[in-house]
Amino acid sequence: MAEVHLIRRERFSSAHKLSKDEWSPEKNYEVFGKCANPNWHGHNYQLFVTVKGEPDPETGMVIDLKLLKRIILDRVIEDLDHRNIDLDVEWMKGKMSSVENIAIGIWERLEGEIASHGATLHRVRVYETENNIIDYYGG
Amino acid sequence: MAEVHLIRRERFSSAHKLSKDEWSPEKNYEVFGKCANPNWHGHNYQLFVTVKGEPDPETGMVIDLKLLKRIILDRVIEDLDHRNIDLDVEWMKGKMSSVENIAIGIWERLEGEIASHGATLHRVRVYETENNIIDYYGG
Amino acid sequence: MAEVHLIRRERFSSAHKLSKDEWSPEKNYEVFGKCANPNWHGHNYQLFVTVKGEPDPETGMVIDLKLLKRIILDRVIEDLDHRNIDLDVEWMKGKMSSVENIAIGIWERLEGEIASHGATLHRVRVYETENNIIDYYGG
Amino acid sequence: MAEVHLIRRERFSSAHKLSKDEWSPEKNYEVFGKCANPNWHGHNYQLFVTVKGEPDPETGMVIDLKLLKRIILDRVIEDLDHRNIDLDVEWMKGKMSSVENIAIGIWERLEGEIASHGATLHRVRVYETENNIIDYYGG
Amino acid sequence: MAEVHLIRRERFSSAHKLSKDEWSPEKNYEVFGKCANPNWHGHNYQLFVTVKGEPDPETGMVIDLKLLKRIILDRVIEDLDHRNIDLDVEWMKGKMSSVENIAIGIWERLEGEIASHGATLHRVRVYETENNIIDYYGG
Amino acid sequence: MAEVHLIRRERFSSAHKLSKDEWSPEKNYEVFGKCANPNWHGHNYQLFVTVKGEPDPETGMVIDLKLLKRIILDRVIEDLDHRNIDLDVEWMKGKMSSVENIAIGIWERLEGEIASHGATLHRVRVYETENNIIDYYGG
Repeated sequence: MAEVHLIRRERFSSAHKLSKDEWSPEKNYEVFGKCANPNWHGHNYQLFVTVKGEPDPETGMVIDLKLLKRIILDRVIEDLDHRNIDLDVEWMKGKMSSVENIAIGIWERLEGEIASHGATLHRVRVYETENNIIDYYGG
Repeated sequence: MAEVHLIRRERFSSAHKLSKDEWSPEKNYEVFGKCANPNWHGHNYQLFVTVKGEPDPETGMVIDLKLLKRIILDRVIEDLDHRNIDLDVEWMKGKMSSVENIAIGIWERLEGEIASHGATLHRVRVYETENNIIDYYGG
Repeated sequence: MAEVHLIRRERFSSAHKLSKDEWSPEKNYEVFGKCANPNWHGHNYQLFVTVKGEPDPETGMVIDLKLLKRIILDRVIEDLDHRNIDLDVEWMKGKMSSVENIAIGIWERLEGEIASHGATLHRVRVYETENNIIDYYGG
Repeated sequence: MAEVHLIRRERFSSAHKLSKDEWSPEKNYEVFGKCANPNWHGHNYQLFVTVKGEPDPETGMVIDLKLLKRIILDRVIEDLDHRNIDLDVEWMKGKMSSVENIAIGIWERLEGEIASHGATLHRVRVYETENNIIDYYGG
Repeated sequence: MAEVHLIRRERFSSAHKLSKDEWSPEKNYEVFGKCANPNWHGHNYQLFVTVKGEPDPETGMVIDLKLLKRIILDRVIEDLDHRNIDLDVEWMKGKMSSVENIAIGIWERLEGEIASHGATLHRVRVYETENNIIDYYGG
Repeated sequence: MAEVHLIRRERFSSAHKLSKDEWSPEKNYEVFGKCANPNWHGHNYQLFVTVKGEPDPETGMVIDLKLLKRIILDRVIEDLDHRNIDLDVEWMKGKMSSVENIAIGIWERLEGEIASHGATLHRVRVYETENNIIDYYGG
């Protein structure tokens, strides 16, 4: 049968910064540049979630798109959108909010939930800006 | 030698709906939401066709791009553009016009023809909207 | 005081065609080209609504954006999205569904409602495709 | 002679929120929605600066583009990019950081400087997201 | 009656440079920067042509879009696309190929032809890159 | 551990043509179409470089993004931007400047340098236009 990849885009607008409390401001600036500015900055993140599976013979759909959208909103966007990733997001606590770690965190929020509905999470793609993008395919 | 992927974008504007005649309007709406509205709706679809192969040592090209464009127009766009996918397209008859099935249908229209010109179809990507995208790599 | 223009984007996916019942198929094709194909086609329309006014000194906002979004959804998107513009939309009845007429129709749906909330509709912009766009500033 | 408008795009990624200290959290949430979340959120803002004038007969240019870019970076982007608009930006102090007020603030930062180089600022356009945009043409 | 603006996008890919033969390489580099590099560089230009008029009561269209496209291709794109603007384009001879002058040149190529078909050219917009854009409204 | 793909976009604006000196103009035109026009044309190329690796546990980053940007600018963009690929670029000498060969050439310029910093080049993607794109994953 035909395996197909379905990609769904959602967006979130969040504040974050990159810095380590145990480092001096100088060291933080040297490593993270302006991303270390103390009062945070922010981005319009774009999230592309890829789910793979075989289209249902009756509906022609890999997964009910309304369901997939609901899962992404409930498990990811609700937590991140119009929030501070460093201060507000339980599942990012103790991690640097690099776009790499955000993508890994989103994967962990989605993988089981999507599997429980009979589809397979294939990739999480996150745009931080139009120039900086992360793809994560799971561990 | 160096295998390279060439991606060509084309577009088509089509009408379609998602519904099954043997289901009640209520069941269709429950499964397909507003996509089941009876008088059709439509999209500006974007199609990205990926062909792989080794660049010709003389021309530097994987495939003659004018030829690839001609194949995509003749085999796919001519049939779909400014048409109703459910009513007008021979090779979609009897299938739900989900973007999954459209991508699979386009693959079947292109694979042999591209192979007959010495290149290999690698992926068909179809954007239904800026938020809903399908990738198909063949059966 | 400072007059500012606020632009809000919304989208709708609709079917339509361009043809006149009183013309022959040949004449319709001659005038409207493939847009006259009988079983409809469709587009992902993009709508940009521009409202002008002075920012409220307390809130800094020309108009409550949640309200503006609600007005556009209720008065325009609800009617057009996932519909057939020629068959389903009361306020387009008897008009050709050219993007010019769609823009004028949207203006008429929005102008009074926006005025009743103390702001002024300045422009309706509609993208039919990435190549065809209409701006309407009112009669 | 021929007056021409030159538009230059620059970008900045900033944190902000919309809330008034003298209001209760409930009132702030009622007026500003999720934009009032206390720990800030952020955006990839896009700034389009329009300058008008006659092209120099020798160079064909309305204004030296390297100079215009330098002015925008020095007077605007340097202050806003990777900053918190509410906490870090001198010329936004005491104002709500609505995109309306950001556009007005940018106008005030640029108008005199551009005039001192013989050109005229015509419009400041700021995208907060792909859906929310402000145009400001001066007082 | 209702005046409407119709905007049509077309594209061209051209080579050019900015330099004056009567200036030294140093002076050219000082004024035009890397745009003065002697062996040319190039761009994917985007052209947006705005035509205004009243929609025809029968067709709903400001101008026959097939005709407008034909005029733009014949009078502008044919000359510029896959050409060197400095060497190949008769109507740019003796002018710096700044995007300002390209926009003015395109206006002059289109204004009379569009007028002869009963519509009015309103604006020529040219994108040189995603960051550099010119608008021209005529002399 | 978690392997992650980081994608960085950069841009360059260059002139080129496709033609072989040993072929007649007619043969060149037959094979390459308008790309063979003798005085060059040009493009705004977009380059997406994908690097893979495990995020550093301390910084959360696959590679220092400032370093990656520096490598891409020094090894690729500096040579190509505002240049003629056929005349000015040492590492494209003797090759057709097809977008396939440009992508391969960029790979060769980046692979070793990125490896020497502990990361792995995974893919070079080059957009010649919004319709023509090449992906190269190495030999």
